[in-house]
Amino acid sequence: MKTITSEILSTGNEVLWGDVDDTNASWLARRMRESGIVVQRVSCVGDDVRDISSIMKEISKRTNSEKVDIVLVTGGLGPTSDDLSSEAAAIASEDNIVLNQDALVSMEAYFKKKGWEVSEGNIKQAMLPSRAGFMENSCGTAPGFHVKCGNTFFFFMPGVPKEMKAMYELSVLPVIKEKFKLDNSFSMIRMKLFGLPESRVGSRLKEFNAKFPDLTLGFRASFPIIEVKISTMSCNKNQSNKNFNNKNKDNNNLNTKNKDNKNLNCKNASSMNHNSGIQDIQNNTLMEDARKWVTSQLEGYIISQDGLNMEQEVGRLLTQKRKTVAVAESCTGGLIANMLTDVAGSSEYFLMSAVTYSNAAKTDILGVNPDTIEQNGAVHKKTAQEMASGARRVAGADYGLSTSGIAGPGGGTEDKPVGTVCIGIAGEGFEKGYQYQFSFSDRHMNKKIFAVKALDLLKRTLESPHL
Amino acid sequence: MKTITSEILSTGNEVLWGDVDDTNASWLARRMRESGIVVQRVSCVGDDVRDISSIMKEISKRTNSEKVDIVLVTGGLGPTSDDLSSEAAAIASEDNIVLNQDALVSMEAYFKKKGWEVSEGNIKQAMLPSRAGFMENSCGTAPGFHVKCGNTFFFFMPGVPKEMKAMYELSVLPVIKEKFKLDNSFSMIRMKLFGLPESRVGSRLKEFNAKFPDLTLGFRASFPIIEVKISTMSCNKNQSNKNFNNKNKDNNNLNTKNKDNKNLNCKNASSMNHNSGIQDIQNNTLMEDARKWVTSQLEGYIISQDGLNMEQEVGRLLTQKRKTVAVAESCTGGLIANMLTDVAGSSEYFLMSAVTYSNAAKTDILGVNPDTIEQNGAVHKKTAQEMASGARRVAGADYGLSTSGIAGPGGGTEDKPVGTVCIGIAGEGFEKGYQYQFSFSDRHMNKKIFAVKALDLLKRTLESPHL
Repeated sequence: MKTITSEILSTGNEVLWGDVDDTNASWLARRMRESGIVVQRVSCVGDDVRDISSIMKEISKRTNSEKVDIVLVTGGLGPTSDDLSSEAAAIASEDNIVLNQDALVSMEAYFKKKGWEVSEGNIKQAMLPSRAGFMENSCGTAPGFHVKCGNTFFFFMPGVPKEMKAMYELSVLPVIKEKFKLDNSFSMIRMKLFGLPESRVGSRLKEFNAKFPDLTLGFRASFPIIEVKISTMSCNKNQSNKNFNNKNKDNNNLNTKNKDNKNLNCKNASSMNHNSGIQDIQNNTLMEDARKWVTSQLEGYIISQDGLNMEQEVGRLLTQKRKTVAVAESCTGGLIANMLTDVAGSSEYFLMSAVTYSNAAKTDILGVNPDTIEQNGAVHKKTAQEMASGARRVAGADYGLSTSGIAGPGGGTEDKPVGTVCIGIAGEGFEKGYQYQFSFSDRHMNKKIFAVKALDLLKRTLESPHL
Repeated sequence: MKTITSEILSTGNEVLWGDVDDTNASWLARRMRESGIVVQRVSCVGDDVRDISSIMKEISKRTNSEKVDIVLVTGGLGPTSDDLSSEAAAIASEDNIVLNQDALVSMEAYFKKKGWEVSEGNIKQAMLPSRAGFMENSCGTAPGFHVKCGNTFFFFMPGVPKEMKAMYELSVLPVIKEKFKLDNSFSMIRMKLFGLPESRVGSRLKEFNAKFPDLTLGFRASFPIIEVKISTMSCNKNQSNKNFNNKNKDNNNLNTKNKDNKNLNCKNASSMNHNSGIQDIQNNTLMEDARKWVTSQLEGYIISQDGLNMEQEVGRLLTQKRKTVAVAESCTGGLIANMLTDVAGSSEYFLMSAVTYSNAAKTDILGVNPDTIEQNGAVHKKTAQEMASGARRVAGADYGLSTSGIAGPGGGTEDKPVGTVCIGIAGEGFEKGYQYQFSFSDRHMNKKIFAVKALDLLKRTLESPHL
């Protein structure tokens, strides 16, 4: 099967000028690659009809190895005078703007459902190039559309991420699948790791390509977590033909709530099933072999085989074992509690966090022995241990977890420099203290790695066969 | 003075494929605009020497209104085989790669300082186009450089944000200033707002352009905070000549710690003074008039006139008034504590947060009357009031602040749907409770807006002339 190539075009002054980060482009690039489509270039231009139409023409005129089949355009579909995508598309495709009846009907239905009045500005949104194909917006007012310009298909979607994502899944991808005879099959394994720097993850997996030439390995780092992605399709321009016929059952979204899907909460979009495919036993076996090999290379550092974050995995384990936890935080300042409570349903297992910045709060609320602090200081394994036991006792929880350390920029000493953290963990019949040293000078990075390290210790405790 | 035009080019598969968001491009776009330089386009290509050199040629060949003076390129300067920027730059500028002695000496000095060995891969990093100008990397190993291609200057910087930002300030901007006779003057007022949606901020300020035609108004939204930016320079392509000669003292970084500068903590870079300029009293008066007018239009919603975030402004007020605070959080789950402790030095005024998810924790730790919860429920003004007083009493703080609400997705009722929050605030001789209803269905958005709303109430209390 031939390589399908794409580009992504973001429009809008707010993106061009850096007033918002272009997360739409990165999301679309990942989704394209997951369908085995090569992404050649990402561009951004401002709200200028000439700039938009001229880059459209440029892209549609690329030839040979640079030829572009599909362009995903975001932004410029709103009701105001700086929303110019439809006009630019008409210019680039040498077409006229007309009132698109399908777009108008769909928009009127959306407004009726919301109990709003259709304004003149909204009517403008239904003015599309005469040869455009209309695409419904299930989460907003701006209609989407697609036009052909030369041999390139341009898909115009709203700039609002929630609306864009829903339209991509419900309208764009189905059209692409049909027009380009896209294979439905795509399979990806997402493992989350903690505790190894990205360079060492890379070197431990450097033989992957030799061992599994038909699979693709990818990484996505979100400090301090690294995601390792194994997939059945290559999206490297030079390799993309190779794996295109792989068929595989998708297990990507199984049990996962990842950040990418967070905003995709429109009714219709959430029920889509964009990855259903024919199961290919041979490929499944290959993927499982790759999973086993990667797991063996990264043993001891894998948080989740299903793409779960640390706080989601800890929550899953606590729920599974019907255990509860209470936290006592000093240097992490509420971050552990905030992470745990980011998970919906966490009230089932998270009872309390005492964010005790002052020593008085540590002794008064958690019952830490003032002598312990006096003799060892607040940043000490023994203090952390007593904080963990105190949190457990006060909240009546199964486990207590605590942190006391120096996030910086101030507060470091020669003995205990910025980056030092003591972590305590307590449970039925045990109380342990640990001390670690991280080398970051940034307060936010330190808070983050201290919190994830503490949750990692809790996770290891929960996984222990003795419990 | 003529308009100076620029483009931004990000290189790297990890950016092209969406595995990292391109925050470098948005940062550079903002910095360009702050120097009055027009940003025409942002592009991204992968680690492919042909793709990089061909887009360089494309850009350098743009003519007339699309002509590009400056291109800022990031990525591809590392020691590995997929770091191809130097090679691509040589191809595009029809040059050869040679060992650049300045780059080698600088790199060896950096390695010596760190106590590392220079490897063969590192030597490769010093191989630059023969006509390239070397730019020092004060925070890392990869040397930067600039080349001229046609009439366009290309500046090559590392992809690591900290290294890129330091190199931009220390090397790129000074070269641009010299080559393009850039005026040093730029002035920006950054106001942070809370409580008005962006559309209503826009409509309240819609007469700005008519009233202050020589100034530029901009927005940057970071939910739920909106930043309003007034600056002395226009960076709109069609307006950029107009204000180019404005001279003004910069007050941009005064007292602010904004997110953009967070990672720029290299020794040399932090001492730069990129905005010193000649004071123009006339323009200062104009900016102050604009500030007054904008302030009057947005009265009651401005958090800070100096770009401070809510938690920084609350911290500033607490420090100024020598007051302390303790927090009791239910639905915000530690987020308020986490925000407050993100500010360095917060241990001076933040004593404690009790993240009491369970009712038992509310009564046991905070001393909330069990009858209050039984009669009114946990999400109630009266419960919130008692939580705030309890936190204040337990920690011995001047103020107590509390939240109890329903962040969702579950837990809503007809009476108290998802998005309901009760906030309590207590101080010497008073205890108040409030109830608000927000319309978001997203758990993270609700936690965020609940937390900012609570801090906003504390801020208003601290600002009250009666205290």
